Amino acid sequence: MRRALYTFLLSRVVQPQRATQRWPVAGLLDAATGRGHGQRVALTCLAGARTLGNPRGGQKFHAAGRTTMAEKKLALGLDFGTESVRALLVDLTGRERASAVAKYRHGQLTDRLPTTNKKLPAAFALQHPADWMDSAGKAVRRTLRDARADGAAVLGIGVDFTSCTMLPTDRHGTPLCLTRQFARQMHAWPKLWKHHGAVEQTDRINEIARRRRESWLHRYGGVIGLEWFFPKVLETLESAPAVYEAADVWLEAGDWFVWQLVGGDAAQIPRSTCQAGYKAMWSGKDGYPSRAFFKAVHADLADVVRDKIPGRLLAPGQCAGTLQATASRKIGLPTGIPVSAATIDAHAGVPGAGAAEPGTLVMVLGTSSCHMLNAREEQPVPGIAGVVDGGILPGLFGYETGQAAVGDAFDWLRRMLGQRDFGWLTEHAAALPAGAGGVVCVDWMNGCRTPLMDGTLHGAMAGLSLGHGPEHVYRALLEASAFGLRWIVELLREGGVPVRRFVATGGLPHHNPLLIQIYADVLGETITVHPSEQGPALGAAILGVLAAGRAATGFRSPTQAIRAMAAATGTHGKRARVVNADRSKRSAYAKAYHRYRQLADALAGELRWT
Amino acid sequence: MRRALYTFLLSRVVQPQRATQRWPVAGLLDAATGRGHGQRVALTCLAGARTLGNPRGGQKFHAAGRTTMAEKKLALGLDFGTESVRALLVDLTGRERASAVAKYRHGQLTDRLPTTNKKLPAAFALQHPADWMDSAGKAVRRTLRDARADGAAVLGIGVDFTSCTMLPTDRHGTPLCLTRQFARQMHAWPKLWKHHGAVEQTDRINEIARRRRESWLHRYGGVIGLEWFFPKVLETLESAPAVYEAADVWLEAGDWFVWQLVGGDAAQIPRSTCQAGYKAMWSGKDGYPSRAFFKAVHADLADVVRDKIPGRLLAPGQCAGTLQATASRKIGLPTGIPVSAATIDAHAGVPGAGAAEPGTLVMVLGTSSCHMLNAREEQPVPGIAGVVDGGILPGLFGYETGQAAVGDAFDWLRRMLGQRDFGWLTEHAAALPAGAGGVVCVDWMNGCRTPLMDGTLHGAMAGLSLGHGPEHVYRALLEASAFGLRWIVELLREGGVPVRRFVATGGLPHHNPLLIQIYADVLGETITVHPSEQGPALGAAILGVLAAGRAATGFRSPTQAIRAMAAATGTHGKRARVVNADRSKRSAYAKAYHRYRQLADALAGELRWT
Repeated sequence: MRRALYTFLLSRVVQPQRATQRWPVAGLLDAATGRGHGQRVALTCLAGARTLGNPRGGQKFHAAGRTTMAEKKLALGLDFGTESVRALLVDLTGRERASAVAKYRHGQLTDRLPTTNKKLPAAFALQHPADWMDSAGKAVRRTLRDARADGAAVLGIGVDFTSCTMLPTDRHGTPLCLTRQFARQMHAWPKLWKHHGAVEQTDRINEIARRRRESWLHRYGGVIGLEWFFPKVLETLESAPAVYEAADVWLEAGDWFVWQLVGGDAAQIPRSTCQAGYKAMWSGKDGYPSRAFFKAVHADLADVVRDKIPGRLLAPGQCAGTLQATASRKIGLPTGIPVSAATIDAHAGVPGAGAAEPGTLVMVLGTSSCHMLNAREEQPVPGIAGVVDGGILPGLFGYETGQAAVGDAFDWLRRMLGQRDFGWLTEHAAALPAGAGGVVCVDWMNGCRTPLMDGTLHGAMAGLSLGHGPEHVYRALLEASAFGLRWIVELLREGGVPVRRFVATGGLPHHNPLLIQIYADVLGETITVHPSEQGPALGAAILGVLAAGRAATGFRSPTQAIRAMAAATGTHGKRARVVNADRSKRSAYAKAYHRYRQLADALAGELRWT
Repeated sequence: MRRALYTFLLSRVVQPQRATQRWPVAGLLDAATGRGHGQRVALTCLAGARTLGNPRGGQKFHAAGRTTMAEKKLALGLDFGTESVRALLVDLTGRERASAVAKYRHGQLTDRLPTTNKKLPAAFALQHPADWMDSAGKAVRRTLRDARADGAAVLGIGVDFTSCTMLPTDRHGTPLCLTRQFARQMHAWPKLWKHHGAVEQTDRINEIARRRRESWLHRYGGVIGLEWFFPKVLETLESAPAVYEAADVWLEAGDWFVWQLVGGDAAQIPRSTCQAGYKAMWSGKDGYPSRAFFKAVHADLADVVRDKIPGRLLAPGQCAGTLQATASRKIGLPTGIPVSAATIDAHAGVPGAGAAEPGTLVMVLGTSSCHMLNAREEQPVPGIAGVVDGGILPGLFGYETGQAAVGDAFDWLRRMLGQRDFGWLTEHAAALPAGAGGVVCVDWMNGCRTPLMDGTLHGAMAGLSLGHGPEHVYRALLEASAFGLRWIVELLREGGVPVRRFVATGGLPHHNPLLIQIYADVLGETITVHPSEQGPALGAAILGVLAAGRAATGFRSPTQAIRAMAAATGTHGKRARVVNADRSKRSAYAKAYHRYRQLADALAGELRWT
């Protein structure tokens, strides 16, 4: 049945123009209608593609000490996080040649804008759009220098980005916040994924969608999130109508960045099916929600899709265009390099973790966490953040779930406890038995993503007594994170979605081994920690390789490229760390998990204060 | 009706032997039976009494710069706390002449005994009995020196003590823990009030009392506490039967200390009606619970009152005897000084705060807090820790309520937050608006005393989000303490017990003015902070004056003595601080209090994990 549906979907989209892209991916779609087009799109990726020998033998040759073609050609992954961007250069065998991180000059704008002294509301989290290109330029140049590589060796560029981080621009792509008119207007600035200003708007959108029984609602577990695209648009429409009015384009920051790289007019904005599918209620089959729905939400929103969301939809790994002159100067790479459509940072972690097959839960652990899974079937699982056909990899249903505060929450608690680093806390928390001495935590300090999809919920610590120290509350928070994960896995399995393997990636697994041990113990499952510390960046680089196309890379399918470049079993001497569950802790954790669920129920029920 | 009852009670007790003690106090009672006796008691207080002019004019004369008799004669209050003892010398006008604090050498024994390396269980909190006399000797000597006073000027000694801190001794008063046989047996050591080892025993005592519908249960709000006398006795009987067997005497530490001062054999141990009434289910009318009850609890406990609790019962302010030679040398005062029966530290705070009248809630704020109130009527208020006829002052019903962790909890949180002192926390918490930014705390880190009387409950923090800092959780804890107090006041008033005035005393009100402001704002009431920082010690000194008798002091009643020596409106230039409620915070606190009660309900209900 899924196959049939997929064939049907494919029949509705325009096939890629280039012979090199033969694998089944969602094609080009008119962003406004969700229907196929293509006549206006002039793909120029071939201009930048370079032919290359078959990379499959690369590993073997390398073992013999010889440099192969696959090792000479490089891909660039750009991984835009909350505080910084990471650039990663890899060769086609997946070997990491160099990477560099460049912080955003303005970081997160949570206190005030650079243009005014007025304090921002507590829920606000904004960014400065100039930081993205500035920091990318620094990181790319440093990476090329450290790798002693020539920019001409770069075969393709992939971009992943936090989401839904979004902004309004004029028709030329200039962010409204960089215009004189709107520089001091907070709603004109890019809203970071974690911006929580749209509480009322989210409630209203959910309520109207439920009342109208919108068919797309089930794909998101019955609830759409506070951090998503349209709540943020509606917040601006209601709070700063002049900004909404002046915006020719509303778009994801990842799409904006790719647009900056490849150029073109607004009608050709390369929008990612990943971002659109997970954060903007878009699907390949139905496009965006209907005009009637938007009108029911707000009269002035009725034509938002037609008027404010121009562009074409491309799956991650599809070529969005090639590097244009202006961007070429800014990031220090030659023009003509193919650039992939953007993807969400977490979703890039799936190919980055070498997970090409269904049933592997890829846990991308950082500031927050995303747990992603491909499956052959679409199942409506209540509470799942989103199911998008081909949203992660072509040909599979991508399930996205997540936890809203992970590294962020650990760091918040560390600061709260007056600890300079995690050394003391980790040492003493690790020495405690399972159950944190009776301290029970629910880690909703940034709301609950899966399964309640409610950014207004709060965290709690219970079971506190005078005998407890900082190590107890820290351990309780780590355990809470594990219990939140266990809840998600139980939901997926109960909903008929197989979960067979667990791969951890992102920065946290490498810096916090205690966390991964607790995850394994609480799940009662083995967890493989992917050896790359740059999972999403590696995934982005792989998408750049896919964008470069078969003729340039020799890879015949995404699966082949992923396996060659990101095998989780170990690449180039870096071996995956396999963390087994300690069965002796099973019953202690079962008891503690029960308490966590009781506390979570209370916090989402009678103790829900907003 | 109350008058009639009181007259009836008086008719059952032996009247004091000395003509000087004319005010109605509970008389001498056989400890074992609760019935009057007297023939065996040779009161020798008169030997130490010295005649003195009428002290009522003292204040006036002092204003004229002349030293009166009332200013020449002194009283000593000894206030035994959890970590130290305070000695306070005052004259009969209430002027504080000097005070000194001496820490206990061994502090609280919570980790291990001084005699073994074995770790104590987590619930254990013990003390070293030698510390009490050693520290008292140091403090008294320092006080005499600082006051440049002659010990001969001391007219009477009063003693208050934490309760129920208790111990087993042999018939001569030697603590069993100081014998070779039991030095390494943890159950032979004095159990501090906060020792929480008797959870099961408390449950059983409560269950059996309820089943048997014991009439005394209603006096304690229907529940007896984990920290009380008989749970601790039963814990020893069950955990260390040899200790129970070897003990000739079980008694409160305060009673033990007074016994050490005045000497005499075990049958004459001066036991306080205050400790017995609030912590050992004793009443003037009915004595201790019946043999049948104790037998139902444990066969070997049947005769505990007859065999292990010898002595006579005396109200605080009654003369227990005079200072004997051995103790005289140890504390550095001449023999023959009258010594009052002991009282509980918190209860000493009532006369110490000048509260002689019914309807004034005296809040003694320290490590934990006791809120005490005298009333003309006995009302069975559910959840009240205890109502004892004449338990605080003669002729009134003394209501005791309390919160188990106050200063203790603040200090615990300060350490948890890695703060060296309270400076930063206080400054930043004070700057926050009412409601602590949505953080809701329940301060049961040492269990809940009033109204749930359950030492196994735990504290919690809810409403946590990434925007919160240490100042939010600290303020939330202060507010939780205020909400717990508001709950108590509402209970008393709903139960028909008038609460008209609020007086704060103890160390905390002077060190933590923010706390008192929050208390006033949350209650919506004016709070008077008594100028003495040594409220209980002053109260103890007043009890010493009462013990010295009318002939020596000229005071005709306890009320007269209390008013002369501890007027809350200000004595000797120290003025009471009057803290008014800020009405603008009323609705914010009403909302926060509602959340606190919801969280408390959940913690005592479905989130009750033990």
